[in-house]
Amino acid sequence: MNYRKICNIIGRIFWVEAAFMLPPLGIAVYRGEHASVRGFLIAIALLAVLGMAGVFLLRPRRDSFYARDGLMTVGLAWILVSFMGGLPFFFSGSIPSLVDCFFETVSGFTTTGASILPAAEDMPLSDMYWRCFTIWLGGMGVLVFVLAVSPKKGSATAGDEIHLLRAESPGVTVDKLVPRMRQSATILYTIYIALTILQVIFLLSGGMSLYEALVATYATAGTGGFGMMNDSFASYSPYIQVVVTVFMLLFAVNFNVYFLLLIREFRKALCNQELIAYLGIVAASIAVITWNISHMFPTLAESLRHAAFQVASIISTTGFMSTDFDLWPELSRTILILLMFVGACAGSTGGGLKVIRVVILAKAIRRAVLQAVRPNSVRIIRVDGAVVDEDTVRGTLNYFAVFMAIQFLSVLLVSIDNFDFVTNFTAVATCFNNVGPGLGGVGPTRNFAAYSDFSKLLLSANMLLGRLELYPILAIFVPSTYKK
Amino acid sequence: MNYRKICNIIGRIFWVEAAFMLPPLGIAVYRGEHASVRGFLIAIALLAVLGMAGVFLLRPRRDSFYARDGLMTVGLAWILVSFMGGLPFFFSGSIPSLVDCFFETVSGFTTTGASILPAAEDMPLSDMYWRCFTIWLGGMGVLVFVLAVSPKKGSATAGDEIHLLRAESPGVTVDKLVPRMRQSATILYTIYIALTILQVIFLLSGGMSLYEALVATYATAGTGGFGMMNDSFASYSPYIQVVVTVFMLLFAVNFNVYFLLLIREFRKALCNQELIAYLGIVAASIAVITWNISHMFPTLAESLRHAAFQVASIISTTGFMSTDFDLWPELSRTILILLMFVGACAGSTGGGLKVIRVVILAKAIRRAVLQAVRPNSVRIIRVDGAVVDEDTVRGTLNYFAVFMAIQFLSVLLVSIDNFDFVTNFTAVATCFNNVGPGLGGVGPTRNFAAYSDFSKLLLSANMLLGRLELYPILAIFVPSTYKK
Repeated sequence: MNYRKICNIIGRIFWVEAAFMLPPLGIAVYRGEHASVRGFLIAIALLAVLGMAGVFLLRPRRDSFYARDGLMTVGLAWILVSFMGGLPFFFSGSIPSLVDCFFETVSGFTTTGASILPAAEDMPLSDMYWRCFTIWLGGMGVLVFVLAVSPKKGSATAGDEIHLLRAESPGVTVDKLVPRMRQSATILYTIYIALTILQVIFLLSGGMSLYEALVATYATAGTGGFGMMNDSFASYSPYIQVVVTVFMLLFAVNFNVYFLLLIREFRKALCNQELIAYLGIVAASIAVITWNISHMFPTLAESLRHAAFQVASIISTTGFMSTDFDLWPELSRTILILLMFVGACAGSTGGGLKVIRVVILAKAIRRAVLQAVRPNSVRIIRVDGAVVDEDTVRGTLNYFAVFMAIQFLSVLLVSIDNFDFVTNFTAVATCFNNVGPGLGGVGPTRNFAAYSDFSKLLLSANMLLGRLELYPILAIFVPSTYKK
Repeated sequence: MNYRKICNIIGRIFWVEAAFMLPPLGIAVYRGEHASVRGFLIAIALLAVLGMAGVFLLRPRRDSFYARDGLMTVGLAWILVSFMGGLPFFFSGSIPSLVDCFFETVSGFTTTGASILPAAEDMPLSDMYWRCFTIWLGGMGVLVFVLAVSPKKGSATAGDEIHLLRAESPGVTVDKLVPRMRQSATILYTIYIALTILQVIFLLSGGMSLYEALVATYATAGTGGFGMMNDSFASYSPYIQVVVTVFMLLFAVNFNVYFLLLIREFRKALCNQELIAYLGIVAASIAVITWNISHMFPTLAESLRHAAFQVASIISTTGFMSTDFDLWPELSRTILILLMFVGACAGSTGGGLKVIRVVILAKAIRRAVLQAVRPNSVRIIRVDGAVVDEDTVRGTLNYFAVFMAIQFLSVLLVSIDNFDFVTNFTAVATCFNNVGPGLGGVGPTRNFAAYSDFSKLLLSANMLLGRLELYPILAIFVPSTYKK
């Protein structure tokens, strides 16, 4: 394990994080939020000093950097960046408990949006800005940080990027957009910013203030779901709700699709099985829920609007709400629970299992049944016409097994707090899949404050496990990682 | 597909079923339960006639019998035998709805023990005897029926037995006790009857009547869990509860272990990883639950007794209760839910995923994490010192994926009835894993009567899917089964 190098990378990331705290510091100074000024100053100072320690005191002696170093770097970076990112709330007094600060910031960086705040409206605006901005940063992942600070291509350490990207990038395989990693990250980054700006413009034209529009867009773009308001989007106009619905759906699409559209590969972009499955699931869920909740709203259009908003919110793992869906009939609630597990497309900012994995699992299931019927037949799994190699199929089946094991074990551990099963099951599911709200005690109008510190830390671990696709966090706990 | 042969086999099974209805008919005549006499007579007549039609009119023209024929035979046989087995309740009027009759009998033959009866005590004794006897019959599976009636070894059709056994026998691989299938079935059968007699003796010495002891033992041996009483074992003496606890645990052990003990292979019997994992899970669960519920009972011994009874009842998938565990703290309830999924050892009469699958899944998960850390390492999974071949590992991962998909899709479909999530989730889990009671609306003091006919049929399908390890039932719905 190349500890020095890991510290070195994390040190650089700390500097970037400190830089990103400057805008909220500016807001705090401008608005005279003294406690928040203190909070941000202390956090920035700590990040700068620790970053220097990492960068200057721990210069790497070797260049060797293996998969386990990559996993370790990503896992540790997210944990430490989340911890440091929570310090402004702690030192400003906005959130008095360190565990709560950690939970809230993990929730931001992992783009979950689960909160321990009983009344988000009471937070100083600068803290609120930082809280929502963590989601936007998280949205493109530590990847962006790392690429921004990693050494130039051609140096001896060029291999790093591949390991880091492997550990980080969402989805089954790293589908290279263009051969050079840095270049592909820049393209994703550009698409991300372009969509962000587009959404801000649409929201501004709906009458939102710039601040509101920014904060709402950060949360949508990162598929996070922290709101300014405790009732999320319930009190906004139908126009705003529709705009947000559309952008939630857009940010959950594989960004490769946008890239293919940009280079005019329309056929390849739109005939992609993951996209088709995603849109099919969305359409079917909206149809069933609209019918199922139609008695609760005066017009079908309103049922449709809420159904679409909520389906988009959950499958994209954003977690906004336009109405209290915890009061919906059980069929609609169950659909929403299942959508949490499905999650967004790979290569998007969303969480969950990812649609492509669900597609591969469905094909693996179909094959297993067909092979039981005709044991001698040999069958190949194809996606988009191409053969999926058996390592990927096995990897997906493994992933699903690990995923479910973590889900059930976490529900077991969280149950020590003695809340009911729906609350525990959906609390874990919503954190693990980076959605935000659950049902029951963690329903859309409630929050996670009632859980014990132990459970909050466990749920924070769930958020990190889900966001980083399990292995970077699990690697930290495996002795084999540390062996020569 | 060799339809004639399938009908032929099912015809023979019908005859056996008719024969097994004679003892309850005798009880009905002896006790003057006229409605039940009529019910059994009509059912026996129908079984005899339909059996004759199958055996004499549809003589097989070919001997070819493929895996899909085997799956189809087993799947269809369980469905039809369950349907026919429910007719006495229908014609006697004990259960007025045909769907309810089917549910109750599927529940018996699959050794689930889930019931739609609000008051089991009100049933005529002969019907009650038949109801509990279906569990005992189901316990050894259609296997026993089939072997009892299948043509002698040496005929052209000797191959059948292997396909049938593959489709039927619980567990990952068919571990041949002795090379000849019929012989091994006879050994299992003998152990089953010996344990049954032993339990009857223990219960008689605890003051139970012969009838009560028989009925209770049938339900324990088959790990079914229908009780005579609606409060199950709550009103029985601690001695009876302890005896039942021990026998529930014994019937959930892989019967190979008993065979090995009989032939004095003690080391091989007791150092088996499935057994050790099973006992470890049981001990840990009892310890945690005893501690968790200790405030609810006057003495620790009583907490321990109830914890042990309930853990044994759920992991063996019997489903008896000694107290209303739906009132226990959430940690204990969650442990019981997880134990439902673990289930019993392979090669026992219990249901669930089976301990050996859980062991293999745990090892596969461990390997997946280690391979993420060191991608170039090659790792082999071993159980009991022997290498588990990769086909078995992949088969287990596939099984788990199919299993979870069915669990979640069933919860979705059952949610149409608009009961709460705990009720739906545990209703499906308890049926699918052949346990019996769930939590909430299907808790140990409640029953399945409130569900719609659609849900009852779906839950019946879940019981059959779980009992037959998925594929024989799934094969019925796959077009590939019917193609040349």
